[in-house]
Amino acid sequence: MVTHVRIRREHLESFCQRIFQTCNLSEGDARTSAAVLVAADVRGIPSHGVGRLWRYVNGLKTGLMLPNAPLEVLVDTPSSIVIHAHGAMGAPVSAKAMGSVISKARINGAAFGCVRDSNHFGIAGYYAMMALDHDMLGIAMTNTAALGVPTFGRQVMYGTNPLAFAVPADKERAFVLDMATTVVTRGKIEVYDRLGKELPMGWAVDKTGRPATDARAILDDMQDRLGGGILPLGGAGEAFGGHKGYGLSIMVDILCAVLGGTAFGQDLYDTETSSARVSHFFGAIKIDTFRDPGEFRRDMDRMLSNLRNCPPAEGAERVYFAGQKEFEKEDECSRSGVPLLQKTYDQICMIGSEYGVEPPPTVEGR
Amino acid sequence: MVTHVRIRREHLESFCQRIFQTCNLSEGDARTSAAVLVAADVRGIPSHGVGRLWRYVNGLKTGLMLPNAPLEVLVDTPSSIVIHAHGAMGAPVSAKAMGSVISKARINGAAFGCVRDSNHFGIAGYYAMMALDHDMLGIAMTNTAALGVPTFGRQVMYGTNPLAFAVPADKERAFVLDMATTVVTRGKIEVYDRLGKELPMGWAVDKTGRPATDARAILDDMQDRLGGGILPLGGAGEAFGGHKGYGLSIMVDILCAVLGGTAFGQDLYDTETSSARVSHFFGAIKIDTFRDPGEFRRDMDRMLSNLRNCPPAEGAERVYFAGQKEFEKEDECSRSGVPLLQKTYDQICMIGSEYGVEPPPTVEGR
Repeated sequence: MVTHVRIRREHLESFCQRIFQTCNLSEGDARTSAAVLVAADVRGIPSHGVGRLWRYVNGLKTGLMLPNAPLEVLVDTPSSIVIHAHGAMGAPVSAKAMGSVISKARINGAAFGCVRDSNHFGIAGYYAMMALDHDMLGIAMTNTAALGVPTFGRQVMYGTNPLAFAVPADKERAFVLDMATTVVTRGKIEVYDRLGKELPMGWAVDKTGRPATDARAILDDMQDRLGGGILPLGGAGEAFGGHKGYGLSIMVDILCAVLGGTAFGQDLYDTETSSARVSHFFGAIKIDTFRDPGEFRRDMDRMLSNLRNCPPAEGAERVYFAGQKEFEKEDECSRSGVPLLQKTYDQICMIGSEYGVEPPPTVEGR
Repeated sequence: MVTHVRIRREHLESFCQRIFQTCNLSEGDARTSAAVLVAADVRGIPSHGVGRLWRYVNGLKTGLMLPNAPLEVLVDTPSSIVIHAHGAMGAPVSAKAMGSVISKARINGAAFGCVRDSNHFGIAGYYAMMALDHDMLGIAMTNTAALGVPTFGRQVMYGTNPLAFAVPADKERAFVLDMATTVVTRGKIEVYDRLGKELPMGWAVDKTGRPATDARAILDDMQDRLGGGILPLGGAGEAFGGHKGYGLSIMVDILCAVLGGTAFGQDLYDTETSSARVSHFFGAIKIDTFRDPGEFRRDMDRMLSNLRNCPPAEGAERVYFAGQKEFEKEDECSRSGVPLLQKTYDQICMIGSEYGVEPPPTVEGR
């Protein structure tokens, strides 16, 4: 039986922040890194949550991620910023870049930014959502180590390259699309491997480029760069639009890395002793350069409630809009605390004891 | 046997232009409308090409599209423009809007525009590609009459909502993604219906919301608004990312219609006597606000040639990047003329004879 504990969001954040501070992140950078990590658990995306804390701690301790890398602003115009992260922790530089993009968009109407040579930045949606309180549309993307195989190909040529798009509403929470442009992420393949389950046909191809279901073989061959990998959104071939997902993945890589002026595609990969220097893209568009933001928000309410109220298919319970499930999770976490798998909780407690940080208390009565 | 004729691009364009002029479009608007229509055939997308000429002629003659609608500029800032098309022909107002967006981006770094209450604008890629000669990234989107069913839903709530994204390269032609955000377009379903073939499972759902394969029943029930429709990119449910395609479709609707301040979602539909007033979104981002455009183009060359040269899967011949096939078609059309189905050619000749316009000659020797 899988058991969970629940922890107050603020306790979990302050624990992670203290851990990051012991890894030589500044207080502010540690706070941001903790907030992004915990936001993933809060929004029901535990694959990107505190279960990854050890990876960040390990990365910071071994120098894969540099706690004090100098952020070099390569370009700074009224509509754009390019930051060379020099291998910094991904979340703090990303939050700074998105903050700058929002400030620029306030004056310029729209602005965009690239962060190059960075590390994992957590959930893309976090940064896109930073625009919501500013009456702006928010955009965030990142490339990743190469895991995706092009339509009709047999080798990985691009990452899972998520894109996020956030739009404010009034009474409804917000529209928040946050999606890998591959059909699934590597994490999903790993879960099937651990369970010894066959992959659904249409998630991945083997080293011959043919659709395959053996999770272990696919992960091994990808690791050894022998061929095979994850399919784009839309699956194999063109019949179900795989070429569209493939195109979206490349679009993300162009915006993050080619526009940022750094490595892209199959040149991004992790090894035992190095981690891919990934790049990010951020954008903000100010609503009042198009129409009154209040009217816009009320129209968004109408759109989102129409979608929520779409009659469900036979056998289905509800229709959701993008972000709705995550906001419902967030509300549940506010009431009851953030759910963590017992083994994730045990793991972060071990990290705490190693670095002399008191573990976060679980919610009473659980 | 299906027979084709070939016609020189310039002959086909000037024929369509003269037809549009007989429908009371100005010379310039007629030229733009013809260029967009023929570009679809040239790029291998005949579903959006001159086979649709009769629909436009019919629309202009019956008042579904207004040849002389006043274009009302509702908003005009350094980073944005909103144009109320008042039911105009889609292509001319779209080309004007994208031209304005490009001019604004030249000064402002990035700019966006909405055209609201318009009509079919042809292929989205045409407008995105207008940015290519200006060292800019080009974006174009449109919503359409509602044909798409949300994940877990049973009723159409959004259109096939294509998005296009164009990026210049140097020696390589360009990256041009131009994709419906539904798994297929209605045209594809209609083709299966005409052939009496079953749809592949995963393209559409019936009025109960369950995946279905009877093209005729699905088209009829959609027409009568009884339920059922086309699935989003990623198919039914969430296992293959259908919720992602659904989210992308809504993103397009937000940018086109909510930002433009007009009708969206299920409120857009065609009837016998009216056509959906669709809306479009355009964007341009100037490359030199990020890096030297020459270096950018050379990196794009490297990316695109890497993708072209990805080893193909067993049983596949080649790997393409987005837009590559279309450029190859375009080259072939330059050499040999634009291919039209004999029945499409016969149809445009009939339109020509009705409106007193000499039909375009076919290429000699065919």
